[in-house]
Amino acid sequence: MDRLDAIFSPESVAVVGASSTPGKVGHDIFENILKGGFQGTLYPVNPKARSVLSVRCYKSITDIPDPVDLAMIILPPRIALKTVDDCIEKGVKGIVIVSAGFKEVGGDGAIVEDEIAAKCREAGIRLIGPNCLGVINPSDSVRLNASFSARMPNKGNISFISQSGALCTAVLDFAADRGFGFSKFVSIGNKADVDELDLLRYYHKDPETNVIMIYMEQLRFRPGFIEEVKEITSGERPTPILVIKSGKTAAGAAAAASHTGSLAGTDAVYDAIFDQAGIIRVDTVDDLFDFAVAFSAQKIPADNRVAIITNAGGPGIIATDMTEISGLRLAKFSSDTDWNLHQFLPPTANFNNPIDVIGDATRDRYEKALETVIEDDNVDCVLMILTPQSMTDAIGTAQAIVNIYRTSTKPIICSFMGVVDVSAGVKHLQENQVPVYRFPEDAARAMGKLYSAARWLKRQILPEYELTFNEPRAREIVDETLAAGKTVLGEEDGQELLSCYGFDIPAMKIARNPAEAADFAEEIGLPVVMKIVSPQILHKSDAGGVKVDLKTREAVEKAYTEIMESCREYSPDADIKGILVQKMVPPGQEVILGVTRYPGFGHLLMFGLGGIYVELFKNVTFRLAPIGRNNARRMIRSIKGYEILDGFRGKPKADVEKLEKLLVGLSAMVTNHPEIKEMDINPLFVHEQGKGATVADIIITFEKTET
Amino acid sequence: MDRLDAIFSPESVAVVGASSTPGKVGHDIFENILKGGFQGTLYPVNPKARSVLSVRCYKSITDIPDPVDLAMIILPPRIALKTVDDCIEKGVKGIVIVSAGFKEVGGDGAIVEDEIAAKCREAGIRLIGPNCLGVINPSDSVRLNASFSARMPNKGNISFISQSGALCTAVLDFAADRGFGFSKFVSIGNKADVDELDLLRYYHKDPETNVIMIYMEQLRFRPGFIEEVKEITSGERPTPILVIKSGKTAAGAAAAASHTGSLAGTDAVYDAIFDQAGIIRVDTVDDLFDFAVAFSAQKIPADNRVAIITNAGGPGIIATDMTEISGLRLAKFSSDTDWNLHQFLPPTANFNNPIDVIGDATRDRYEKALETVIEDDNVDCVLMILTPQSMTDAIGTAQAIVNIYRTSTKPIICSFMGVVDVSAGVKHLQENQVPVYRFPEDAARAMGKLYSAARWLKRQILPEYELTFNEPRAREIVDETLAAGKTVLGEEDGQELLSCYGFDIPAMKIARNPAEAADFAEEIGLPVVMKIVSPQILHKSDAGGVKVDLKTREAVEKAYTEIMESCREYSPDADIKGILVQKMVPPGQEVILGVTRYPGFGHLLMFGLGGIYVELFKNVTFRLAPIGRNNARRMIRSIKGYEILDGFRGKPKADVEKLEKLLVGLSAMVTNHPEIKEMDINPLFVHEQGKGATVADIIITFEKTET
Repeated sequence: MDRLDAIFSPESVAVVGASSTPGKVGHDIFENILKGGFQGTLYPVNPKARSVLSVRCYKSITDIPDPVDLAMIILPPRIALKTVDDCIEKGVKGIVIVSAGFKEVGGDGAIVEDEIAAKCREAGIRLIGPNCLGVINPSDSVRLNASFSARMPNKGNISFISQSGALCTAVLDFAADRGFGFSKFVSIGNKADVDELDLLRYYHKDPETNVIMIYMEQLRFRPGFIEEVKEITSGERPTPILVIKSGKTAAGAAAAASHTGSLAGTDAVYDAIFDQAGIIRVDTVDDLFDFAVAFSAQKIPADNRVAIITNAGGPGIIATDMTEISGLRLAKFSSDTDWNLHQFLPPTANFNNPIDVIGDATRDRYEKALETVIEDDNVDCVLMILTPQSMTDAIGTAQAIVNIYRTSTKPIICSFMGVVDVSAGVKHLQENQVPVYRFPEDAARAMGKLYSAARWLKRQILPEYELTFNEPRAREIVDETLAAGKTVLGEEDGQELLSCYGFDIPAMKIARNPAEAADFAEEIGLPVVMKIVSPQILHKSDAGGVKVDLKTREAVEKAYTEIMESCREYSPDADIKGILVQKMVPPGQEVILGVTRYPGFGHLLMFGLGGIYVELFKNVTFRLAPIGRNNARRMIRSIKGYEILDGFRGKPKADVEKLEKLLVGLSAMVTNHPEIKEMDINPLFVHEQGKGATVADIIITFEKTET
Repeated sequence: MDRLDAIFSPESVAVVGASSTPGKVGHDIFENILKGGFQGTLYPVNPKARSVLSVRCYKSITDIPDPVDLAMIILPPRIALKTVDDCIEKGVKGIVIVSAGFKEVGGDGAIVEDEIAAKCREAGIRLIGPNCLGVINPSDSVRLNASFSARMPNKGNISFISQSGALCTAVLDFAADRGFGFSKFVSIGNKADVDELDLLRYYHKDPETNVIMIYMEQLRFRPGFIEEVKEITSGERPTPILVIKSGKTAAGAAAAASHTGSLAGTDAVYDAIFDQAGIIRVDTVDDLFDFAVAFSAQKIPADNRVAIITNAGGPGIIATDMTEISGLRLAKFSSDTDWNLHQFLPPTANFNNPIDVIGDATRDRYEKALETVIEDDNVDCVLMILTPQSMTDAIGTAQAIVNIYRTSTKPIICSFMGVVDVSAGVKHLQENQVPVYRFPEDAARAMGKLYSAARWLKRQILPEYELTFNEPRAREIVDETLAAGKTVLGEEDGQELLSCYGFDIPAMKIARNPAEAADFAEEIGLPVVMKIVSPQILHKSDAGGVKVDLKTREAVEKAYTEIMESCREYSPDADIKGILVQKMVPPGQEVILGVTRYPGFGHLLMFGLGGIYVELFKNVTFRLAPIGRNNARRMIRSIKGYEILDGFRGKPKADVEKLEKLLVGLSAMVTNHPEIKEMDINPLFVHEQGKGATVADIIITFEKTET
């Protein structure tokens, strides 16, 4: 028995702060539980009332003569705190604090919230809220509507978690209009105790929940969140999770020092978490419902081959368009299917996909066409489109679809276009859990989401690389750097740290005069690159501080003098440490690897094609550390323009395996050394397959962490 | 008086083929006109019936004793043809042929359709159809429902053109559900006579139409379409046009020989036409309605600064997100506004944008907040968000919004979240033409569309360049080429044609032995580039047929020998004309210019950043020729990565003005010489500002045209 059962399926509920005055929250919530047909026992608690809505009232929760599972508290913070003590004394198992005025207003409210949370934790009581709309469970055996909303939703197999109370009301209202049912519905408010992960675990175990929807403003992220949620979305009994996350365009770390920092806004963290955990992000509340309906039918296509059956050409074209946009493709029918279709469809029909059963089709043609295509091994799923025309039999067609739907494992999604004329058919489909939409593009998009879930479930999982890193030496370097009061390492002093995690750095030395530079160049091997070394000169090229492809001793000496002159002019006060002489990196594809640390989340890793691609197109991917081989692989492969690394236009393939290992190494580095705040490895040159990759420039910044 | 008035606002209608048998089209249409409350006189025509639905029937349209404005014909092709003769004799002014079986089935149907169209044209009769759903005009003075649909829509100021009859029914049904009104509604079928442009002209002149919606499968494009529609969307009395175009992902010219051809699918033609004409393309029927509602209110924001007023935080965040995604930004309020807001909002409210009037707000706070912000000069438009909470007064708030809305020119768009609880308020807003949506993201997206229309209306129009081209010489070159049976010109023989239209070609000569090559190189000026010349070797680099940056006489001689050897090996049977010696092009930004000809549309011009950008990212823009300076300018500026040409990261700006002139020249070239089928100028090197651009390689293919 889960402790959250006391909250979602209590046998007895006390409403502390129940009131007889309509319009007061303590009245409304009590009334909603009472009139919602709660299957357990309900006790109002109010020291000043004899009864509330004719129900005998108790002065304190401790006065109730029977055991109490759930206490709903609607009281100001200080009085709520006192009531929590009473609840502990009474032995309640769950508490929901609806009232506001806690952490969200700060000051004493925040202090009281922390005290309440601590007391509950110690007593083993789960707490929802404060500052929330409440809890709803429409299940027949419970029928608990402990919320502001007078409306008890239909029961269904979709559970909802909302961080916005106001949105809850609108969502319930909208759901009622669409005949949409819920299993569990909760507004989580300030999350003093129960948070998203608690609820995801609970919903996942709940046999009445098959789909989870979340409206999220800020996630309370905990280590292990990704791994655990990944298990929920793709483990033994996968439960799809759909999220609408707001605050999307909120300005990110605009003032960040690195490329990575400036590209990785907060939203990149969330996208990374959702990607890694298999959570499906949607953009609008409409989409949240549309996709939840599709998932609630619990059928996932084996592959992306769609059959479309329609009684009108135009909508068939619209569906075809959206099918292809959504990552699906039109199935090519077998010759059997083709032959069968010719047996009953009129000659004017279209026998190819999309099948047009023609405007005068009644139930019969739809039924036979669906029976035929759903048996075809080349078909993974079916879109059924019905437009109301004079011969159309919406209810009969719906009945036929439901019958076939029950006997097949392949998903069927319908679009019955129009509202009034087709409503009986729509209702029949909905009552039988066949997803149905008003427009064919919505049906096709929903099918596309089912297919992307199928790809997530079937994703390739390769064994991890066995990599060894020199963590002790890296630890020393980081400690020495911090002890010396340094917060930045560049290419001349940061390379050893990187090499501890598998990065290859070209041989280099710092020269202090032209002759020394020439000697070093010959020692390292020509050709070389030369770069100014000065903490004040960050943009070395702008200062004329970089010369490449120097092939002779003379060229090196000349370059030394020119670089010095140019940099002295550019920045007369700069402390110039010398000029770095570095072996010229062999040719390769430029990429960028980066890291930026997010308080509360950890390190966000970035990968992108380098140069103009990252600077202008901001074409990069993110993952939250730690990652292993499979995430590294997907990071690289999901980049737009990945073909450049994969032998585009006859060029040799790049060493993507090495790149994967370096991303894993980077992840290990920041996990082992959380003091790393930001890092750009830009560019990294990835050579041909088997030939590795070479770091050409780096910048690493440090900041001590509290942990 | 427009001839289409006889179709949309007839005083008398004859239904030829009217029938007493329910379920027959001739019955349904007659019944729908009769029961729809048509304000004129209706005559059934059927040689075999005495009356239809109790109305006296005529044997032939010529037997009707009164004048007939509109004949609705529901008869098979051959009989319809005969009836058209009768109509001409009778002097009807407009004809709608509903029946199918014409051009869409081919054969005799197509022949009859052409005959009917010719007869109508000659008689000065406008014809809609055949193969269409009919015509609807809900205006009080007409009330004509000459359609399959039993449902007469509400009247409104939005007119609709549909190419799909089936979609019409669904759209009418959907509109009824949303309380959406129409001005004129037509299904255009096969467009034997009246097509999109006719209807756009008519709707634009119609005082009852303020917004036009189109469902388009294939446009009947005519020269002048773009210019005329541009005048409709942005001329003296601009009428927004929203289009949903299906067939989007239909495979384009996959087997095209040029880059341009392979990138320019049919959809690129449509996108170009819509862009150039100011037609707003939308993706789904839902969006079509959402945006039409916003435009129907006829208020456009002056700029993109939005004020948001909400009674709940979450929806405010959602609206903010979508606001920014939609190209809008949050207004920063003046200090007066701030001071005023503090006079009536409770201290817990949020005074910054989005303004949160807090969950317990009644009408009063909404009203005062709206009055305050709409007066602020920093605010161009307002989003009002209302979530149903216990104190919420949806109808009162709606009344307040309507009152303020009437006195302000600034657009206000509302989101009243939820369905049942807020329905009275929503109805009041709808009745008063205030756009209202269920979710804040839809409201924000709609506002974004209004703003993009504002930008279109205010777009910068610069005077045209005065360019002179050597058309006579170009004509000669084209004629000679075609006369010689050549269909392809490459860089060695195509350069003169390009230079007639303002393109600069580096000096070049074809050498036939190493010494000649070296002589030419010295004559032209070193360094040079050398390229194989052979009609069989199209991919010169792959054949080892290109060498660049040859700086000395000796290098040129050596290169000649090497290129010859390599190409003979690559393609032993190739007819090698020699080796092109070309002055090395000075550095510049690579771009691609291209052309591909579309039957029925003309030449589609392409511009993109060259190299990998076009090959991998397919990042290109299109316009349909002819274009002038302003379209050339927008083409270049709309490319992703335009910053590369505009002095990105301290690099010198490229000569964009020259690029604009070259696009105008390219447009003139293909307009003057329609025999040009495809062209790639790839790469064109654009030099620094003022230094022009140089063509580095070209391929031009020709095909005689019928015109």
